[in-house]
Amino acid sequence: VSARQLVNGTPGDLVSIDDRGFNYGDGAFETMLVAQGAPIWWEAHVERLRRAGDALGIALPAPGKLRDDALRLTRGEQRATLKLVVTRGPSRRGYRADPTAAPTIAISLHAAPMVSADDARLGLRVRRCAMTLAAQPRLAGLKHLNRLEQVLARAEWTDDSVQEGLMCDVDGRPICATAANLFLGVRGRLVTPLLDRCGVAGIARAWVLARGDVETRAVAWSELETADELFLSSSVRGILPIARLDGQQRSAGPMTRELQAALWSEQPAFIPAGCEQ
Amino acid sequence: VSARQLVNGTPGDLVSIDDRGFNYGDGAFETMLVAQGAPIWWEAHVERLRRAGDALGIALPAPGKLRDDALRLTRGEQRATLKLVVTRGPSRRGYRADPTAAPTIAISLHAAPMVSADDARLGLRVRRCAMTLAAQPRLAGLKHLNRLEQVLARAEWTDDSVQEGLMCDVDGRPICATAANLFLGVRGRLVTPLLDRCGVAGIARAWVLARGDVETRAVAWSELETADELFLSSSVRGILPIARLDGQQRSAGPMTRELQAALWSEQPAFIPAGCEQ
Repeated sequence: VSARQLVNGTPGDLVSIDDRGFNYGDGAFETMLVAQGAPIWWEAHVERLRRAGDALGIALPAPGKLRDDALRLTRGEQRATLKLVVTRGPSRRGYRADPTAAPTIAISLHAAPMVSADDARLGLRVRRCAMTLAAQPRLAGLKHLNRLEQVLARAEWTDDSVQEGLMCDVDGRPICATAANLFLGVRGRLVTPLLDRCGVAGIARAWVLARGDVETRAVAWSELETADELFLSSSVRGILPIARLDGQQRSAGPMTRELQAALWSEQPAFIPAGCEQ
Repeated sequence: VSARQLVNGTPGDLVSIDDRGFNYGDGAFETMLVAQGAPIWWEAHVERLRRAGDALGIALPAPGKLRDDALRLTRGEQRATLKLVVTRGPSRRGYRADPTAAPTIAISLHAAPMVSADDARLGLRVRRCAMTLAAQPRLAGLKHLNRLEQVLARAEWTDDSVQEGLMCDVDGRPICATAANLFLGVRGRLVTPLLDRCGVAGIARAWVLARGDVETRAVAWSELETADELFLSSSVRGILPIARLDGQQRSAGPMTRELQAALWSEQPAFIPAGCEQ
């Protein structure tokens, strides 16, 4: 049996209770889809992790070392999810970080994401969460380990027919889903919320932005109701239309379909079972 | 050698990388002073932990069980610091919590706090931090495990002559120190910042509030400069005057002295070496 978890390069799944990840959420993480033995968008994920490290003052290991460790877990995996957590490592009690502390690198392999053909074709059933995202520009965009807002938002519903929740900032502007980014199609143009005060800047979101003309700006909640198209992006689940937003039924639009097709063509691992050509 | 760490009642210092404390900061903690074999203000700490558990939906073990575990570590300790961390426990990947997950209880014994006679008599040298506290009413007051704001604030200085940093909310109003609460003496009356949007409601702060006439309200930064007295409260370090706030020299005032004397009389463990009668 090959290892499914590595902590600092060694098979195992244990960290010290002195780890600053455990005590303060002092670190960041990445979650990625694995296909044909390797993580998709690996470089982009490591680059975002490095940006988080820079913001928090955590020095990451050399990219080659991270990659070697990741590939030890993903080699031979046809479809899975890989999670990579980096923390400032163990330290003495107190917020002050020991500058000589060695980061903890925890890499783990998980089940492949559950995306059905209906999720991909018709879309996800989504609700608006009451839990809001506080404005903290210093941490905005980063996938750091302080995720209680997402935990509390996801705890708002237990009905399995609802698959995601949209979170707003304190001014009621939609920012992202609990574990995905949000896009609107408005009069032939894609729009995605600005993430300068809160939210996570996703890697699948970056893929969409890199494809071209997307307006990044503050969005009002009322725009979701009038938008021609709504979809979510996730580096694990891909591009998925929104089929229902609370009481409102919606259908997948042409811009969403086109992006989804482009993604599936470029990265076939995102194609759910039943959607293959 | 007696145990200095217990995880779920068993000597040891390891938790799973699947623990939601490690992944999301999904939990809360308490830090307390230990004297003559037992933690000070134990009931108040457990009560605050339970409030955090209620807010996060984490069921704590019975108080008697927590107390028995804590006393296993503190028995025979003349002076130490006890830390108690409760998380939602290990779970599958994703923000959604498994309602059957069993919380992780990590209890650890640490060195006694370093408070000098000068710290207690003259006061602490304190700076204003640039890092601000985001407004999140759902988490305000709780000592949860999402503490990157405090980590980043504490990382702003390395000069050991500065002992604490004051943090403001996004509107520039002082809220608390990185690891203590703040009090002002203004025209014979004590004032402490309102913690309805951010900040941690400390147990030593609650002790001060319970002694009587303290006004809890929004405070402007300019009031710190004109206040007659300024002090910090901590359940580990006790009541300590502020001797310098950035460039401004200050001296300990009569209200601060009186409260400190009352605390030392009630809980002699807070008396630093060199300050005994």
